[in-house]
Amino acid sequence: MERGDKIKAGDVRTASRLIRDIEDSIPEAKATIKHIFPYTGKAQVVGITGSPGAGKSTIVDGLIETSRKKEQTVGVLAVDPTSPFTGGATLGDRIRMQRHSEDIGVFIRSLATRGSLGGLSKAVGDAIHVMDAMGKDVIFVETVGTGQQEVEIIHYAHTVIVVLVPGMGDEIQAIKAGIMEIADIFVINKADRDGAQKLQRELMTMIEMSHIPPGGWKPPVLTIRNSFKPEEFEQDLRTLSAKVREHYDFLISSDLIGDRQKRKRLHELNEAIRFSILEPVLEMLVKTGELDSMVEKLVKKESDPASLAEEIAKKYLQGCF
Amino acid sequence: MERGDKIKAGDVRTASRLIRDIEDSIPEAKATIKHIFPYTGKAQVVGITGSPGAGKSTIVDGLIETSRKKEQTVGVLAVDPTSPFTGGATLGDRIRMQRHSEDIGVFIRSLATRGSLGGLSKAVGDAIHVMDAMGKDVIFVETVGTGQQEVEIIHYAHTVIVVLVPGMGDEIQAIKAGIMEIADIFVINKADRDGAQKLQRELMTMIEMSHIPPGGWKPPVLTIRNSFKPEEFEQDLRTLSAKVREHYDFLISSDLIGDRQKRKRLHELNEAIRFSILEPVLEMLVKTGELDSMVEKLVKKESDPASLAEEIAKKYLQGCF
Repeated sequence: MERGDKIKAGDVRTASRLIRDIEDSIPEAKATIKHIFPYTGKAQVVGITGSPGAGKSTIVDGLIETSRKKEQTVGVLAVDPTSPFTGGATLGDRIRMQRHSEDIGVFIRSLATRGSLGGLSKAVGDAIHVMDAMGKDVIFVETVGTGQQEVEIIHYAHTVIVVLVPGMGDEIQAIKAGIMEIADIFVINKADRDGAQKLQRELMTMIEMSHIPPGGWKPPVLTIRNSFKPEEFEQDLRTLSAKVREHYDFLISSDLIGDRQKRKRLHELNEAIRFSILEPVLEMLVKTGELDSMVEKLVKKESDPASLAEEIAKKYLQGCF
Repeated sequence: MERGDKIKAGDVRTASRLIRDIEDSIPEAKATIKHIFPYTGKAQVVGITGSPGAGKSTIVDGLIETSRKKEQTVGVLAVDPTSPFTGGATLGDRIRMQRHSEDIGVFIRSLATRGSLGGLSKAVGDAIHVMDAMGKDVIFVETVGTGQQEVEIIHYAHTVIVVLVPGMGDEIQAIKAGIMEIADIFVINKADRDGAQKLQRELMTMIEMSHIPPGGWKPPVLTIRNSFKPEEFEQDLRTLSAKVREHYDFLISSDLIGDRQKRKRLHELNEAIRFSILEPVLEMLVKTGELDSMVEKLVKKESDPASLAEEIAKKYLQGCF
């Protein structure tokens, strides 16, 4: 059986290896992704973002359980762009999540940054395709909210959950800076802590002030009690899970699902073009020795990077000027 | 006087505006950067990275003071890729740093992520050029250590300081994952806390085990006591400042400065090429309507991103295949 067919059949070992290959930018992975592409687009992709320590993994862990009780199969992609410094801290949560690893209906993988900037984003898209082609009903993508990533997540997710905790500093100020627009659902985690109600009120005021058009989706602000009673935590997670479903239904009924799909495709195409255009040019520059001689020129201050880059563009691009 | 000349003369207002233009990708900024490029390369560039809350800004603040006492002029570039979530927390430190703003020998600016991935990296390089052309003797670049950024910093800095604090979790595990190679100097901040000595011992063991070649630079592990006595803090900072100078002298005496310079130039050139090659192609794709029709094809599953991107490359690249 071909590799792509094995993935469509849900083979865990083949899928794991493919995701590892994607992460390592192994060229063969590309062919398999092409092969499985027509079988993607069925899963609901749910992004979960928030600052380190907000408890994203705990919430994902809870959502896995809720989904499994509804007989849904689940994929989880933990994106970890912050590996060197904060990688250690989240590792514990990840390990806890692995208690689902005995469950054949749950497939959990993590992706870390290895190569260049931008490479991660492409890898996330491809890894989602793998889980999608495997037939997972819902895919949770967990990412640390660091400027770039949490904006990137909206390109892949149908539904974006932003997790906040009370007392982590000036959240409201932060949210004003750009999170507002990407959140479909706000979750205040550790809501038994002081300041949760205040944070909830502030968020709701902000949502009111953001002038959502009639018929538009108004992001709910949910709370999750996480400190003492497991039954409270479970109850809150059921509410969250229902909201996630409600948002997906809203996208479908309001015909917005097509827009999100287009946005996802456009983003993917952009990433693919970036790769296909840059790689051959850089390869040529290395092969011909042009790169070395240009660096020499820069060191001697005989030219500047922008001028050299323009020369390169004129030489290697056609039909653009 | 031309904009570039004003910057060479150290004009703060012109430099500030140029950095803002760089951040906003205003095309005119490019011409000015070209103009000042020959006057760059004199400053010592020192990168400071570490996890959020490690106290990077406090250390930069202290280093500014030490440098000023040595009559050096100082530039500080605070790179903030994490704006939406953790932006609020670091703001306080930044404000404290602004006490130097009355001092004409100190020029402090921050850069945040606005546009695309990769844009920030180019902006950092250009902003360093501005401060360099202004004639600053030393430029401190402070960046939050998030996977990509802390690896990027080595492309711009002569000397990289990695700041750690005891008890922030599994640092050693984390360091093993990639920080080891980029640090020229380790700093354990808040070293009056429990666990500082243990962390120092572990780091030193790791450095011993990393087999530095004879004549190579062995990263020192310094401590900074930061809790109670200002005179201790000042003393520790003087030691750090001397080490930073020592590392620079080492680069020069061992002829490694040329290598670092080349690495910086190569990285800059890469960034510039990325921009000059991608922008015209994307513009054409939008203008001709190709982008829209390709997205349509993807939505209908008539093709996949990689195949379309290859078509684009074949059409718009010349001399590469």
